[in-house]
Amino acid sequence: MVIILRQRNVKNKQEIMDNSSYLITDPFEYVGKWNKVFNNTNPIHVEIGTGKGNFIINKAINNPNINYIGMEKVDSIIARCLQKIPDDLPNLKIIRANALDIENIFKKEVDTIYLNFSDPWPKKRWHKRRLTSNIFLEKYDSIFKKNNVIIQKTDNMGLFEYSLISFSNYGYIIKEISLDLHNSEIEDNIMTEYEEKFSKKGNPIYYVMVEKDNKK
Amino acid sequence: MVIILRQRNVKNKQEIMDNSSYLITDPFEYVGKWNKVFNNTNPIHVEIGTGKGNFIINKAINNPNINYIGMEKVDSIIARCLQKIPDDLPNLKIIRANALDIENIFKKEVDTIYLNFSDPWPKKRWHKRRLTSNIFLEKYDSIFKKNNVIIQKTDNMGLFEYSLISFSNYGYIIKEISLDLHNSEIEDNIMTEYEEKFSKKGNPIYYVMVEKDNKK
Repeated sequence: MVIILRQRNVKNKQEIMDNSSYLITDPFEYVGKWNKVFNNTNPIHVEIGTGKGNFIINKAINNPNINYIGMEKVDSIIARCLQKIPDDLPNLKIIRANALDIENIFKKEVDTIYLNFSDPWPKKRWHKRRLTSNIFLEKYDSIFKKNNVIIQKTDNMGLFEYSLISFSNYGYIIKEISLDLHNSEIEDNIMTEYEEKFSKKGNPIYYVMVEKDNKK
Repeated sequence: MVIILRQRNVKNKQEIMDNSSYLITDPFEYVGKWNKVFNNTNPIHVEIGTGKGNFIINKAINNPNINYIGMEKVDSIIARCLQKIPDDLPNLKIIRANALDIENIFKKEVDTIYLNFSDPWPKKRWHKRRLTSNIFLEKYDSIFKKNNVIIQKTDNMGLFEYSLISFSNYGYIIKEISLDLHNSEIEDNIMTEYEEKFSKKGNPIYYVMVEKDNKK
Protein backbone atom coordinates (compact mmCIF):
# COMPACT_ATOMS: atom_id res chain seq x y z
CA MET A 1 0.00 0.00 0.00
CA VAL A 2 1.26 3.45 -0.86
CA ILE A 3 -0.11 6.46 0.94
CA ILE A 4 0.42 9.73 -0.84
CA LEU A 5 0.54 12.65 1.53
CA ARG A 6 -0.85 15.56 -0.42
CA GLN A 7 1.34 18.60 -0.15
CA ARG A 8 -0.41 21.93 -0.16
CA ASN A 9 1.32 24.78 -1.88
CA VAL A 10 2.87 27.18 0.61
CA LYS A 11 2.17 30.64 -0.73
CA ASN A 12 5.02 32.47 0.97
CA LYS A 13 7.52 29.68 0.47
CA GLN A 14 10.03 31.86 -1.37
CA GLU A 15 10.01 34.41 1.43
CA ILE A 16 10.48 31.68 4.08
CA MET A 17 13.35 30.17 2.10
CA ASP A 18 15.05 33.52 1.48
CA ASN A 19 14.99 34.39 5.17
CA SER A 20 16.22 31.11 6.65
CA SER A 21 19.79 30.70 7.78
CA TYR A 22 19.32 26.91 7.68
CA LEU A 23 18.76 26.58 3.96
CA ILE A 24 21.53 26.14 1.42
CA THR A 25 20.14 26.53 -2.10
CA ASP A 26 23.38 25.92 -3.99
CA PRO A 27 24.91 22.94 -2.17
CA PHE A 28 27.26 22.12 -5.06
CA GLU A 29 29.68 24.82 -4.01
CA TYR A 30 30.45 23.00 -0.75
CA VAL A 31 31.38 19.63 -2.26
CA GLY A 32 34.27 18.15 -0.26
CA LYS A 33 34.20 20.94 2.35
CA TRP A 34 31.05 20.53 4.41
CA ASN A 35 33.13 20.53 7.57
CA LYS A 36 33.78 24.22 6.84
CA VAL A 37 30.05 24.92 6.67
CA PHE A 38 29.71 23.55 10.19
CA ASN A 39 33.11 24.86 11.29
CA ASN A 40 34.07 21.55 12.91
CA THR A 41 35.10 18.01 11.98
CA ASN A 42 32.14 16.19 13.51
CA PRO A 43 30.52 13.29 11.63
CA ILE A 44 28.06 14.18 8.88
CA HIS A 45 24.72 12.40 8.58
CA VAL A 46 22.53 13.01 5.53
CA GLU A 47 18.81 12.33 5.21
CA ILE A 48 17.68 11.98 1.60
CA GLY A 49 14.11 13.21 1.26
CA THR A 50 13.79 15.04 4.54
CA GLY A 51 10.15 16.00 4.16
CA LYS A 52 8.77 18.32 6.80
CA GLY A 53 11.83 17.69 8.94
CA ASN A 54 10.59 16.16 12.17
CA PHE A 55 13.17 13.38 12.00
CA ILE A 56 16.26 15.39 11.22
CA ILE A 57 15.40 18.35 13.45
CA ASN A 58 15.03 16.08 16.47
CA LYS A 59 18.13 14.13 15.56
CA ALA A 60 20.05 17.42 15.49
CA ILE A 61 18.61 18.51 18.84
CA ASN A 62 19.45 15.16 20.48
CA ASN A 63 22.94 14.79 19.02
CA PRO A 64 24.79 18.12 19.07
CA ASN A 65 28.09 16.45 18.14
CA ILE A 66 26.80 15.18 14.81
CA ASN A 67 26.17 17.43 11.83
CA TYR A 68 22.89 16.78 10.04
CA ILE A 69 22.01 17.68 6.48
CA GLY A 70 18.50 17.18 5.15
CA MET A 71 18.03 16.97 1.38
CA GLU A 72 14.67 17.87 -0.07
CA LYS A 73 13.66 18.91 -3.57
CA VAL A 74 10.14 20.32 -3.19
CA ASP A 75 10.04 24.01 -2.24
CA SER A 76 6.72 23.92 -0.37
CA ILE A 77 7.98 21.04 1.78
CA ILE A 78 11.29 22.80 2.40
CA ALA A 79 9.39 25.89 3.56
CA ARG A 80 7.29 23.84 6.01
CA CYS A 81 10.45 22.21 7.34
CA LEU A 82 12.30 25.51 7.78
CA GLN A 83 9.39 26.90 9.78
CA LYS A 84 9.73 24.05 12.26
CA ILE A 85 13.44 24.45 12.99
CA PRO A 86 14.03 26.15 16.35
CA ASP A 87 16.53 28.99 16.68
CA ASP A 88 20.15 28.22 17.37
CA LEU A 89 20.63 24.72 15.99
CA PRO A 90 24.13 25.02 14.54
CA ASN A 91 24.46 21.35 13.56
CA LEU A 92 21.63 21.32 11.02
CA LYS A 93 21.41 22.41 7.40
CA ILE A 94 18.69 21.85 4.83
CA ILE A 95 19.72 21.66 1.20
CA ARG A 96 17.52 22.04 -1.84
CA ALA A 97 18.64 19.21 -4.11
CA ASN A 98 17.66 16.12 -6.03
CA ALA A 99 19.06 12.78 -4.83
CA LEU A 100 20.30 12.11 -8.37
CA ASP A 101 22.88 14.87 -7.88
CA ILE A 102 24.19 13.62 -4.56
CA GLU A 103 27.67 12.68 -5.80
CA ASN A 104 28.17 16.29 -6.91
CA ILE A 105 27.25 17.62 -3.48
CA PHE A 106 29.37 15.41 -1.18
CA LYS A 107 32.76 13.78 -1.66
CA LYS A 108 34.24 11.30 0.81
CA GLU A 109 32.79 13.15 3.80
CA VAL A 110 29.51 11.51 4.80
CA ASP A 111 29.28 8.99 7.67
CA THR A 112 25.63 7.89 7.56
CA ILE A 113 22.74 8.12 5.11
CA TYR A 114 19.14 8.00 6.31
CA LEU A 115 16.43 6.86 3.92
CA ASN A 116 13.08 7.42 5.60
CA PHE A 117 9.91 6.31 3.83
CA SER A 118 11.38 6.86 0.39
CA ASP A 119 9.14 6.65 -2.65
CA PRO A 120 8.69 2.89 -3.28
CA TRP A 121 8.35 3.29 -7.06
CA PRO A 122 6.25 0.12 -6.97
CA LYS A 123 6.23 -0.87 -10.64
CA LYS A 124 9.09 -3.11 -11.68
CA ARG A 125 10.11 -0.92 -14.59
CA TRP A 126 10.71 1.92 -12.09
CA HIS A 127 13.13 -0.03 -9.91
CA LYS A 128 16.16 2.06 -10.89
CA ARG A 129 14.50 5.12 -9.39
CA ARG A 130 14.37 3.56 -5.92
CA LEU A 131 16.94 5.15 -3.60
CA THR A 132 18.37 1.69 -2.85
CA SER A 133 18.93 0.65 -6.48
CA ASN A 134 22.44 0.03 -7.78
CA ILE A 135 22.35 3.40 -9.49
CA PHE A 136 22.09 5.13 -6.13
CA LEU A 137 24.33 2.70 -4.20
CA GLU A 138 27.11 3.56 -6.69
CA LYS A 139 26.57 7.26 -6.11
CA TYR A 140 26.67 6.76 -2.34
CA ASP A 141 30.06 5.01 -2.57
CA SER A 142 31.70 8.27 -3.61
CA ILE A 143 30.19 10.37 -0.83
CA PHE A 144 31.01 8.15 2.16
CA LYS A 145 34.16 8.91 4.14
CA LYS A 146 35.29 5.45 5.28
CA ASN A 147 32.67 2.98 6.30
CA ASN A 148 29.34 3.16 4.48
CA VAL A 149 26.34 3.15 6.84
CA ILE A 150 22.78 3.34 5.52
CA ILE A 151 19.74 3.32 7.80
CA GLN A 152 16.38 2.74 6.16
CA LYS A 153 12.83 2.88 7.46
CA THR A 154 9.77 2.14 5.37
CA ASP A 155 6.26 0.82 5.65
CA ASN A 156 6.44 -0.56 2.12
CA MET A 157 7.06 -4.31 2.08
CA GLY A 158 8.04 -4.41 -1.59
CA LEU A 159 10.58 -1.61 -1.21
CA PHE A 160 12.01 -3.25 1.92
CA GLU A 161 12.41 -6.66 0.27
CA TYR A 162 13.98 -5.02 -2.79
CA SER A 163 16.34 -2.98 -0.63
CA LEU A 164 17.55 -5.99 1.39
CA ILE A 165 18.41 -7.86 -1.81
CA SER A 166 20.01 -4.78 -3.35
CA PHE A 167 22.12 -3.95 -0.26
CA SER A 168 23.18 -7.57 0.17
CA ASN A 169 24.24 -8.07 -3.45
CA TYR A 170 26.17 -4.78 -3.37
CA GLY A 171 28.30 -5.93 -0.43
CA TYR A 172 26.42 -4.37 2.47
CA ILE A 173 26.07 -6.40 5.66
CA ILE A 174 22.95 -6.27 7.83
CA LYS A 175 23.84 -5.01 11.30
CA GLU A 176 20.37 -4.35 12.71
CA ILE A 177 16.93 -5.22 11.39
CA SER A 178 13.36 -5.09 12.61
CA LEU A 179 10.19 -6.11 10.85
CA ASP A 180 8.17 -4.19 13.45
CA LEU A 181 10.24 -1.25 14.63
CA HIS A 182 7.68 0.19 17.02
CA ASN A 183 7.49 -3.11 18.92
CA SER A 184 11.21 -3.88 18.83
CA GLU A 185 14.12 -3.44 21.21
CA ILE A 186 15.62 -0.73 19.01
CA GLU A 187 15.72 2.43 21.09
CA ASP A 188 15.41 6.15 20.50
CA ASN A 189 13.41 5.95 17.29
CA ILE A 190 12.38 9.38 16.05
CA MET A 191 9.27 9.28 13.93
CA THR A 192 8.84 11.17 10.69
CA GLU A 193 5.54 12.94 10.05
CA TYR A 194 4.58 10.15 7.66
CA GLU A 195 5.52 7.48 10.19
CA GLU A 196 3.33 9.02 12.91
CA LYS A 197 0.37 9.13 10.60
CA PHE A 198 0.91 5.69 9.13
CA SER A 199 1.72 3.75 12.28
CA LYS A 200 -1.53 4.82 13.91
CA LYS A 201 -3.20 2.44 11.48
CA GLY A 202 -1.33 -0.40 13.19
CA ASN A 203 0.79 -1.49 10.26
CA PRO A 204 4.43 -2.39 10.96
CA ILE A 205 7.41 -0.19 10.20
CA TYR A 206 10.40 -1.99 8.68
CA TYR A 207 13.89 -0.90 9.73
CA VAL A 208 17.39 -1.90 8.69
CA MET A 209 20.93 -0.65 9.30
CA VAL A 210 23.51 -1.89 6.81
CA GLU A 211 27.26 -1.35 6.62
CA LYS A 212 29.97 -1.79 4.00
CA ASP A 213 33.70 -1.24 3.87
CA ASN A 214 34.28 1.54 1.41
CA LYS A 215 37.14 0.38 -0.76
CA LYS A 216 36.93 3.28 -3.19
CA MET B 1 4.49 -16.11 18.97
CA VAL B 2 5.54 -19.73 19.16
CA ILE B 3 3.04 -22.48 18.49
CA ILE B 4 4.03 -25.87 19.83
CA LEU B 5 2.48 -28.72 17.89
CA ARG B 6 2.01 -31.48 20.38
CA GLN B 7 3.30 -34.78 19.13
CA ARG B 8 1.44 -37.86 20.20
CA ASN B 9 3.45 -40.97 20.85
CA VAL B 10 3.09 -43.47 18.01
CA LYS B 11 2.78 -46.87 19.64
CA ASN B 12 4.00 -49.00 16.76
CA LYS B 13 6.73 -46.56 15.75
CA GLN B 14 9.53 -49.11 16.03
CA GLU B 15 7.70 -51.53 13.76
CA ILE B 16 7.02 -48.79 11.20
CA MET B 17 10.67 -47.72 11.28
CA ASP B 18 12.01 -51.26 11.00
CA ASN B 19 9.86 -52.01 7.96
CA SER B 20 10.50 -48.85 5.93
CA SER B 21 12.94 -48.85 3.04
CA TYR B 22 13.06 -45.05 3.22
CA LEU B 23 14.63 -44.78 6.66
CA ILE B 24 18.35 -44.77 7.30
CA THR B 25 19.02 -45.11 11.03
CA ASP B 26 22.82 -44.99 10.88
CA PRO B 27 23.51 -42.17 8.41
CA PHE B 28 27.12 -41.75 9.56
CA GLU B 29 28.26 -44.69 7.48
CA TYR B 30 27.35 -42.86 4.25
CA VAL B 31 29.37 -39.69 4.87
CA GLY B 32 30.91 -38.54 1.59
CA LYS B 33 29.10 -41.19 -0.47
CA TRP B 34 25.41 -40.33 -0.53
CA ASN B 35 25.44 -40.48 -4.32
CA LYS B 36 25.93 -44.24 -3.90
CA VAL B 37 22.81 -44.46 -1.73
CA PHE B 38 20.81 -42.94 -4.58
CA ASN B 39 22.89 -44.62 -7.26
CA ASN B 40 23.24 -41.42 -9.28
CA THR B 41 25.05 -38.07 -9.19
CA ASN B 42 21.98 -35.84 -8.96
CA PRO B 43 22.01 -32.83 -6.61
CA ILE B 44 21.32 -33.50 -2.94
CA HIS B 45 18.91 -31.29 -0.98
CA VAL B 46 18.64 -31.72 2.79
CA GLU B 47 15.78 -30.59 5.03
CA ILE B 48 16.84 -30.23 8.67
CA GLY B 49 13.87 -31.01 10.92
CA THR B 50 11.63 -32.65 8.39
CA GLY B 51 8.67 -33.20 10.71
CA LYS B 52 5.81 -35.21 9.28
CA GLY B 53 7.31 -34.90 5.83
CA ASN B 54 4.72 -33.11 3.70
CA PHE B 55 7.32 -30.68 2.36
CA ILE B 56 10.07 -33.10 1.43
CA ILE B 57 7.78 -35.85 0.13
CA ASN B 58 6.13 -33.43 -2.30
CA LYS B 59 9.47 -31.94 -3.27
CA ALA B 60 10.68 -35.45 -4.12
CA ILE B 61 7.55 -36.21 -6.12
CA ASN B 62 7.78 -32.95 -8.08
CA ASN B 63 11.54 -33.09 -8.73
CA PRO B 64 12.64 -36.61 -9.64
CA ASN B 65 16.10 -35.42 -10.68
CA ILE B 66 16.96 -34.10 -7.24
CA ASN B 67 17.75 -36.37 -4.29
CA TYR B 68 16.05 -35.36 -1.06
CA ILE B 69 17.11 -36.26 2.46
CA GLY B 70 14.94 -35.40 5.44
CA MET B 71 16.61 -35.21 8.86
CA GLU B 72 14.47 -35.77 11.93
CA LYS B 73 15.37 -36.80 15.45
CA VAL B 74 12.04 -37.73 17.07
CA ASP B 75 10.99 -41.34 16.46
CA SER B 76 7.23 -40.76 16.66
CA ILE B 77 7.49 -37.99 14.07
CA ILE B 78 9.71 -40.12 11.84
CA ALA B 79 7.11 -42.91 11.99
CA ARG B 80 4.30 -40.52 10.96
CA CYS B 81 6.44 -39.25 8.09
CA LEU B 82 7.34 -42.75 6.85
CA GLN B 83 3.65 -43.69 6.78
CA LYS B 84 2.97 -40.81 4.40
CA ILE B 85 5.61 -41.66 1.80
CA PRO B 86 4.09 -43.30 -1.30
CA ASP B 87 5.64 -46.42 -2.78
CA ASP B 88 8.39 -46.10 -5.33
CA LEU B 89 9.98 -42.73 -4.57
CA PRO B 90 13.64 -43.54 -5.20
CA ASN B 91 14.90 -39.97 -4.71
CA LEU B 92 13.89 -39.67 -1.03
CA LYS B 93 15.52 -40.85 2.17
CA ILE B 94 14.69 -40.03 5.78
CA ILE B 95 17.52 -40.10 8.27
CA ARG B 96 17.29 -40.30 12.05
CA ALA B 97 19.78 -37.73 13.26
CA ASN B 98 20.39 -34.61 15.27
CA ALA B 99 21.34 -31.44 13.40
CA LEU B 100 24.34 -31.05 15.69
CA ASP B 101 25.89 -34.09 14.00
CA ILE B 102 25.36 -32.89 10.45
CA GLU B 103 29.05 -32.47 9.59
CA ASN B 104 29.61 -36.15 10.39
CA ILE B 105 26.84 -37.22 8.04
CA PHE B 106 27.63 -35.22 4.89
CA LYS B 107 30.93 -34.05 3.41
CA LYS B 108 31.15 -31.70 0.40
CA GLU B 109 28.11 -33.25 -1.24
CA VAL B 110 25.04 -31.16 -0.39
CA ASP B 111 23.63 -28.53 -2.76
CA THR B 112 20.79 -26.97 -0.78
CA ILE B 113 19.66 -26.91 2.86
CA TYR B 114 16.03 -26.29 3.76
CA LEU B 115 15.19 -24.90 7.18
CA ASN B 116 11.41 -24.97 7.58
CA PHE B 117 9.86 -23.55 10.74
CA SER B 118 12.87 -24.40 12.88
CA ASP B 119 12.64 -24.02 16.63
CA PRO B 120 13.08 -20.26 17.27
CA TRP B 121 14.79 -20.73 20.66
CA PRO B 122 13.37 -17.33 21.58
CA LYS B 123 15.45 -16.50 24.65
CA LYS B 124 18.67 -14.67 23.91
CA ARG B 125 20.82 -17.09 25.90
CA TRP B 126 19.62 -19.87 23.58
CA HIS B 127 20.71 -18.16 20.37
CA LYS B 128 23.50 -20.65 19.63
CA ARG B 129 20.93 -23.42 19.37
CA ARG B 130 19.17 -21.74 16.47
CA LEU B 131 19.85 -23.53 13.20
CA THR B 132 21.08 -20.27 11.67
CA SER B 133 23.64 -19.44 14.40
CA ASN B 134 27.35 -19.31 13.58
CA ILE B 135 27.76 -22.72 15.20
CA PHE B 136 25.53 -24.28 12.56
CA LEU B 137 26.68 -22.08 9.66
CA GLU B 138 30.21 -23.38 10.28
CA LYS B 139 28.98 -26.96 10.23
CA TYR B 140 27.11 -26.33 6.97
CA ASP B 141 30.29 -25.04 5.28
CA SER B 142 31.79 -28.53 5.42
CA ILE B 143 28.78 -30.32 3.96
CA PHE B 144 28.13 -28.12 0.91
CA LYS B 145 29.62 -29.17 -2.41
CA LYS B 146 30.38 -25.86 -4.13
CA ASN B 147 27.96 -23.05 -3.67
CA ASN B 148 26.12 -22.86 -0.34
CA VAL B 149 22.36 -22.37 -0.73
CA ILE B 150 20.08 -22.15 2.31
CA ILE B 151 16.32 -21.67 2.00
CA GLN B 152 14.48 -20.73 5.17
CA LYS B 153 10.79 -20.38 5.97
CA THR B 154 9.45 -19.33 9.35
CA ASP B 155 6.54 -17.57 10.95
CA ASN B 156 8.75 -16.35 13.79
CA MET B 157 9.77 -12.72 13.35
CA GLY B 158 12.56 -12.88 15.91
CA LEU B 159 14.13 -15.95 14.33
CA PHE B 160 13.85 -14.40 10.87
CA GLU B 161 15.51 -11.13 11.92
CA TYR B 162 18.24 -13.07 13.71
CA SER B 163 18.80 -15.31 10.70
CA LEU B 164 19.10 -12.41 8.25
CA ILE B 165 21.79 -10.77 10.41
CA SER B 166 23.55 -14.09 10.97
CA PHE B 167 23.55 -15.06 7.26
CA SER B 168 24.67 -11.59 6.21
CA ASN B 169 27.56 -11.36 8.67
CA TYR B 170 28.71 -14.87 7.67
CA GLY B 171 29.06 -13.89 4.01
CA TYR B 172 25.73 -15.09 2.64
CA ILE B 173 23.99 -12.91 0.06
CA ILE B 174 20.20 -12.57 -0.10
CA LYS B 175 18.94 -13.82 -3.46
CA GLU B 176 15.19 -13.97 -2.78
CA ILE B 177 13.15 -12.70 0.15
CA SER B 178 9.49 -12.35 1.04
CA LEU B 179 7.91 -11.00 4.19
CA ASP B 180 4.59 -12.56 3.17
CA LEU B 181 5.32 -15.68 1.16
CA HIS B 182 1.71 -16.69 0.56
CA ASN B 183 0.94 -13.33 -1.04
CA SER B 184 4.19 -13.04 -2.99
CA GLU B 185 5.30 -13.76 -6.55
CA ILE B 186 7.38 -16.73 -5.40
CA GLU B 187 5.97 -19.80 -7.10
CA ASP B 188 5.56 -23.48 -6.29
CA ASN B 189 5.63 -23.14 -2.50
CA ILE B 190 5.00 -26.46 -0.79
CA MET B 191 3.53 -26.04 2.66
CA THR B 192 4.68 -27.97 5.69
CA GLU B 193 2.03 -29.34 8.07
CA TYR B 194 2.88 -26.55 10.50
CA GLU B 195 2.64 -23.93 7.76
CA GLU B 196 -0.83 -25.07 6.70
CA LYS B 197 -2.08 -24.89 10.24
CA PHE B 198 -0.41 -21.61 11.06
CA SER B 199 -1.16 -19.69 7.89
CA LYS B 200 -4.89 -20.27 8.30
CA LYS B 201 -4.68 -17.79 11.15
CA GLY B 202 -3.68 -15.15 8.61
CA ASN B 203 -0.20 -14.43 9.90
CA PRO B 204 2.56 -13.97 7.33
CA ILE B 205 5.18 -16.55 6.46
CA TYR B 206 8.73 -15.20 6.07
CA TYR B 207 10.94 -16.67 3.35
CA VAL B 208 14.54 -16.16 2.32
CA MET B 209 17.01 -17.81 -0.04
CA VAL B 210 20.66 -17.01 0.62
CA GLU B 211 23.84 -18.03 -1.20
CA LYS B 212 27.56 -18.04 -0.45
CA ASP B 213 30.67 -19.09 -2.31
CA ASN B 214 32.10 -22.02 -0.42
CA LYS B 215 35.81 -21.33 -0.22
CA LYS B 216 36.55 -24.24 2.05
